[in-house]
Amino acid sequence: MKEVSDTTVLKKIAGTAAADLVKNGMTVGIGTGSTVAFFIEELGRRVREGLSIYGVPTSYQSRLICYQQGIPVRDPAMIDGIDIAIDGADEIDHDLNAIKGGGAAHTIEKIIAAMADEFVLIADSSKLVDRLAVSIPVPVEVIPAALSLVVRRTREAGANPKLRIAVKKDGPVITDNGNFVVDLYFSDAPDMHKLDYTLKSIPGVVETGLFIGMAHKALIAGKEGLNMLTAGRLS
Amino acid sequence: MKEVSDTTVLKKIAGTAAADLVKNGMTVGIGTGSTVAFFIEELGRRVREGLSIYGVPTSYQSRLICYQQGIPVRDPAMIDGIDIAIDGADEIDHDLNAIKGGGAAHTIEKIIAAMADEFVLIADSSKLVDRLAVSIPVPVEVIPAALSLVVRRTREAGANPKLRIAVKKDGPVITDNGNFVVDLYFSDAPDMHKLDYTLKSIPGVVETGLFIGMAHKALIAGKEGLNMLTAGRLS
Repeated sequence: MKEVSDTTVLKKIAGTAAADLVKNGMTVGIGTGSTVAFFIEELGRRVREGLSIYGVPTSYQSRLICYQQGIPVRDPAMIDGIDIAIDGADEIDHDLNAIKGGGAAHTIEKIIAAMADEFVLIADSSKLVDRLAVSIPVPVEVIPAALSLVVRRTREAGANPKLRIAVKKDGPVITDNGNFVVDLYFSDAPDMHKLDYTLKSIPGVVETGLFIGMAHKALIAGKEGLNMLTAGRLS
Repeated sequence: MKEVSDTTVLKKIAGTAAADLVKNGMTVGIGTGSTVAFFIEELGRRVREGLSIYGVPTSYQSRLICYQQGIPVRDPAMIDGIDIAIDGADEIDHDLNAIKGGGAAHTIEKIIAAMADEFVLIADSSKLVDRLAVSIPVPVEVIPAALSLVVRRTREAGANPKLRIAVKKDGPVITDNGNFVVDLYFSDAPDMHKLDYTLKSIPGVVETGLFIGMAHKALIAGKEGLNMLTAGRLS
């Protein structure tokens, strides 16, 4: 109980601090998840105090919180670019490569991140790992018709694939885009660049949860305080 | 008028002949389009005469024709593999690389083709070209939120991208998967392998209409008769 509460405090510290990165007049990509929820809350407070921005939410969840907070939103399809995008992650390595998709929102998150001049991950320090995909699976969003093909091909690539099953809904999780999520478990962490390419080559894979070389910075809250990590952007 | 009629005759010759490739007991991937419609019709005739097969349609269109013809269908997500898949193409080069997606069905078509032990293209000879993408665009299926990103990135890749607009429906064409189609026009035909990789790397691109190294054979009907081309399968 103590531990959960500590993590929540750290998430709030990271999420709240990220609002300092948002300047007046910016178009802001807004990620998804529990850490980002604290970011949106703080952003809403500042908007009500006069900060003038547009939010570009990455999910129905973030869109709803933006509405509740009074943050005006824009459709990513109808804008030319995004000044900064802030998002959480399920795991982050020391090169700021990340695994996302625990919330099944990684496809739109990746679109928004790719549109942004600056992409910043925010997390509590428990998300920092030496090697990705050892403790958690790599999610892929999959066109439903491709389920059998994706299971076969990802097994060939060394994964143990599991169709993500919903709670409070019968059958599989359906993403905001109407697709399935297949979680890929690995007994030995594979090369992430190679894996990403292999997965994208499977017809019907909409997007992987691997964010390789995308983040410019990561704002990490730990017991020792707040830490801003930076990385060369590879792509 | 004469020319249109000739092409239709050739499509019918190719489509009907393709039914000879289907043997009793097979699970058969069934493509989409006007040439394939002749194939399904002939297949239905044979099923009513006792041929026992399952069809795996690649679109609502093909599914409906299968129903009309009395061909039992299976869901690709629920089967392990496909014996043979038969599909049309918008352009085919002499290595049997192809452009598909004029009917906006290329994502499921590619899934079915990738599941098949043998993938056979059928077409009239007007579809055979020396270089792909000179006369027709390369279609990509796109998550709606990614429209702006895809337009920007494909322009950087040398394309002139156009969102495909619907007829008998306001606004853009919506695919069977609920997405947009962006048609990429090129003034100079690019390297197809490189282009396919570049396009797949754009977040929000669900699938390209490039079928590189996928077809084993192509059954081409021309004025000189029926021709079966074969190719080494690259992937």
